[in-house]
Amino acid sequence: MTSSVESLIDKHREVLDRALTAIGTREYWSRYPESPSPRVYGQEAGPAGERAYRAHLGQRFAALADQPLLDGRDDAWAGYEVSPYGPELGITYPHYGEAQLDELLAAASAGIPAWRDAGPLARAAVCVEILDRINARSFEMAHAVMHTSGQPFVMAFQAAGPHAQDRALEAVAYALFEQRRVPEEVVWEKPGKDQPLRMLKRFHVVPRGVGLVIGCNTFPTWNSYPGLFASLATGNAVVVKPHPRAVLPLAISVAVAREVLAEAGFDPNLVVLAAETDGEGLAKPLALHPSVRVVDYTGGPRFGAWLEENARQAVVYTEKAGLNTVVVDSTDDLAGMTANLAFSFTLYSGQMCTAPQNVYVPRDGIDTDTGHRSFDEVAEAIADAVRRLTGDDARAVQLLGAAANRDVVARADGAGSLGRAVLESRAVTHPDFPEATVRTPALVAVDASDEAYLSECFGPVAFLIATDSTQESLKRFVETAREHGAMTASVYSTQESVLQAAEQAALDAGASLSMNLTGAVYVNQSAAFSDFHGTGANPAANATLTDGHYVSGRFRVVQSRRHI
Amino acid sequence: MTSSVESLIDKHREVLDRALTAIGTREYWSRYPESPSPRVYGQEAGPAGERAYRAHLGQRFAALADQPLLDGRDDAWAGYEVSPYGPELGITYPHYGEAQLDELLAAASAGIPAWRDAGPLARAAVCVEILDRINARSFEMAHAVMHTSGQPFVMAFQAAGPHAQDRALEAVAYALFEQRRVPEEVVWEKPGKDQPLRMLKRFHVVPRGVGLVIGCNTFPTWNSYPGLFASLATGNAVVVKPHPRAVLPLAISVAVAREVLAEAGFDPNLVVLAAETDGEGLAKPLALHPSVRVVDYTGGPRFGAWLEENARQAVVYTEKAGLNTVVVDSTDDLAGMTANLAFSFTLYSGQMCTAPQNVYVPRDGIDTDTGHRSFDEVAEAIADAVRRLTGDDARAVQLLGAAANRDVVARADGAGSLGRAVLESRAVTHPDFPEATVRTPALVAVDASDEAYLSECFGPVAFLIATDSTQESLKRFVETAREHGAMTASVYSTQESVLQAAEQAALDAGASLSMNLTGAVYVNQSAAFSDFHGTGANPAANATLTDGHYVSGRFRVVQSRRHI
Repeated sequence: MTSSVESLIDKHREVLDRALTAIGTREYWSRYPESPSPRVYGQEAGPAGERAYRAHLGQRFAALADQPLLDGRDDAWAGYEVSPYGPELGITYPHYGEAQLDELLAAASAGIPAWRDAGPLARAAVCVEILDRINARSFEMAHAVMHTSGQPFVMAFQAAGPHAQDRALEAVAYALFEQRRVPEEVVWEKPGKDQPLRMLKRFHVVPRGVGLVIGCNTFPTWNSYPGLFASLATGNAVVVKPHPRAVLPLAISVAVAREVLAEAGFDPNLVVLAAETDGEGLAKPLALHPSVRVVDYTGGPRFGAWLEENARQAVVYTEKAGLNTVVVDSTDDLAGMTANLAFSFTLYSGQMCTAPQNVYVPRDGIDTDTGHRSFDEVAEAIADAVRRLTGDDARAVQLLGAAANRDVVARADGAGSLGRAVLESRAVTHPDFPEATVRTPALVAVDASDEAYLSECFGPVAFLIATDSTQESLKRFVETAREHGAMTASVYSTQESVLQAAEQAALDAGASLSMNLTGAVYVNQSAAFSDFHGTGANPAANATLTDGHYVSGRFRVVQSRRHI
Repeated sequence: MTSSVESLIDKHREVLDRALTAIGTREYWSRYPESPSPRVYGQEAGPAGERAYRAHLGQRFAALADQPLLDGRDDAWAGYEVSPYGPELGITYPHYGEAQLDELLAAASAGIPAWRDAGPLARAAVCVEILDRINARSFEMAHAVMHTSGQPFVMAFQAAGPHAQDRALEAVAYALFEQRRVPEEVVWEKPGKDQPLRMLKRFHVVPRGVGLVIGCNTFPTWNSYPGLFASLATGNAVVVKPHPRAVLPLAISVAVAREVLAEAGFDPNLVVLAAETDGEGLAKPLALHPSVRVVDYTGGPRFGAWLEENARQAVVYTEKAGLNTVVVDSTDDLAGMTANLAFSFTLYSGQMCTAPQNVYVPRDGIDTDTGHRSFDEVAEAIADAVRRLTGDDARAVQLLGAAANRDVVARADGAGSLGRAVLESRAVTHPDFPEATVRTPALVAVDASDEAYLSECFGPVAFLIATDSTQESLKRFVETAREHGAMTASVYSTQESVLQAAEQAALDAGASLSMNLTGAVYVNQSAAFSDFHGTGANPAANATLTDGHYVSGRFRVVQSRRHI
């Protein structure tokens, strides 16, 4: 082991111990401060981050120029990013066609034996160093994510920066724990008639091979880091295939990883970026390549299902989509409930896999702290809350961000055709980016017997669904989650018996449940080290962020034994 | 929780703690004594077990008459077992056709909510009670396994009794550990500007649904128990589909499980037996049924691959087959090496998934404690050792057992056509069972360039493969294991550098390695709580017995959270 690896282990031992404690208790803990305040990251961090972001624009992403196979190919660099806020980024990144994949994967694999033999603790320490350096670039990352995903700036800072870094560290901690469950060696001594049988047994952690991380447009870091770091920390090499419209955040991340790996004496090609042109479909041949033994994917259900069906040589982790559900039974804080729901619909224009879509309300209305309210009154109260939150354009864009693509806009604009429009989506003009396409949430009232709400409507559209009773609401929640999946669920009730019934329904639905959120916690949010993101228990995802199962399939243990 | 469950928890808390320690250290530990000596199990245990076995013969297996859906069907009971030692067993068992599967699985599922809500510790205690009662029937089980698998009696006692019970307990311990990694609840308190955000979070272990266990002919209990108990201990119901020629051992096991479940206040239908007629192929519709969410399979690679391809609604654990390899480089104990190898070839006529098949020897011979020995001299020394071990029929059958089926006999008798016969298989007459078909191992010499040894030859056939060097031997070991799988590997060398190279090769092959076995430990054997059986790192198996990954896919965690 090199001295630089040893010093990384010394440097990060304490944080790893702390993270291991956190995943055991799942109490609150965070390593990376979520506040973009100058008091936390320093006065210069904000401006410097913005300058660093601007320096990338219109350039070849030179920090990755040392990636393999970039010489002598006309198509070695590619990039087509256009900010959802308007401007073209004009950055190009290392690009590989199908003809290069064998060589690319061989290059990525070359460093695996040394990385494998370094052991779990060394790998974990290298991963923490990567994350710490990524954290130091959180403002640069915030701009990069804002201008690829369309997230509003503060959200981009938090979700793509510290929150993503914390979730990555969580994955590193799980990987470390999981690999160290098996001792490195043990003396096995079985009592015998005359003398005991004694054997020395050694247990080796062996990675699967190359992990492929397929990034998504909306959360390029938050949804990619857990797989990336879980695979890397368990000894695999990683090929990162970003979404063609959200490359920069992952290019920065890969560059940092390569820099740290090289400094620690490992092959930087253990982590490579493989950008693609829009519509090229490079993920398919990559995912089917025999060297790719782990696949992590976040995105649409169709390609997720294709990966699960076809990438049979690999362990496949998918997060797809679902029908996120709210069951409204009653509330002692109508204002808090509607404000909380309005925020969840509005944040990033509903472009979160955790954003609620289907809100079940009894058609006879609900009891509230302001008396019994009819279905229409509840619907109007939610609409009012959305209007209040989004009425001022300059403030609204700071929550809404921009639409990541045209489909999102089309869904917002066409929502009225799906049912009775309670609130139409409104086009908002961004004061700083007039070219940005921004839409407020649409609210659509339907009957439980309708079908419009039975498919995911990704973007700022929520259905208010009239049911006969809360019992029917819970039944439909379970049925739709089991069939179509659900990443999140929440319930509002003043009755403990209803909350208990909702909790039982959540077990049947395989969906995690938030109860009576009326304050500053939103159903869309999951906290690293404490909340599980997805369950793997319904079709929305086949794994969770993060548990032992999420990392244990990424490596195997190979044993030796001899008499001593 | 009922008082009987509480008393089971009290009764078995200590053994569960001990088992949890064992899986952490992987030092020697065993709960169930492997010796069939009257000093261990009592003078009466042997005769009583034989009587209990005989009482089953020619009868309906009445202990399962309380299984669902047995009334009013002509085909409700079926059984076709014929002992490899000759006699027909004439026992019939609960049988379900495709038309009954919906109802059967509904009946099995009915008890899941109460079983789920009982929690991990209660389930583990119930599982230990089941195992203790199965242990008390180890002699009955030995006869049952002997007369279904063809195993010799003492091996049947050990492998199908205490060893299988220990491996089951190992799975129960892993399941308990894995489920308890997540706390039942935690208060999450995030510091805030004014006051902290406080939430109560609860974490629920939720089983997948119904686990299907597909038994094999040769190791009906040893290979079925880990999946059965891992699924049951994690809250699932289990349908056990035995091999049509090896039903009785699993019928006894299921009957005990149902008895204990009912006594503890749970639905006995959480574990049901689904026997089939020979050639019926009931495993396919069962494995594809939407209620079946976990599949455990041991058997031929073709059906194993079919399950992996097709049972997409389930988590599938398979143990198939491979090319178990011995690399002979040199030895300081030629007699010990050849005796050890001869035993491994002979035990149960090579009908173990762990039995060595491919023995690589340099064509120029090897250095030994009796001087340099040519390839032919090494081959002859191994042949001599087999002859010594199997020369006396009465003693030989106590190791060889009987051929489980005609294919095994055909392979033994036809081995000579696969290369140069070093030792032909010999028909042995069993002194007690003249109808038994018993064959000694055949040894076939081939060149590394031949292809005969590149497919599994299940039964008493071993290839002695001439290579240019140990380096080539290791290379072929890696190549064949990666392509065809390997459950076991071993190496003989006096050179530490060769042992190290072999250990590195084993990592590449994904196969566990035994070094210089010359005494009373055989490569075929894996000890519960210490040795991993299979690795999941090559095509022979997609999982290992037992690690965290083997159990963590059988359940999911569903969370709730609320402000407090």
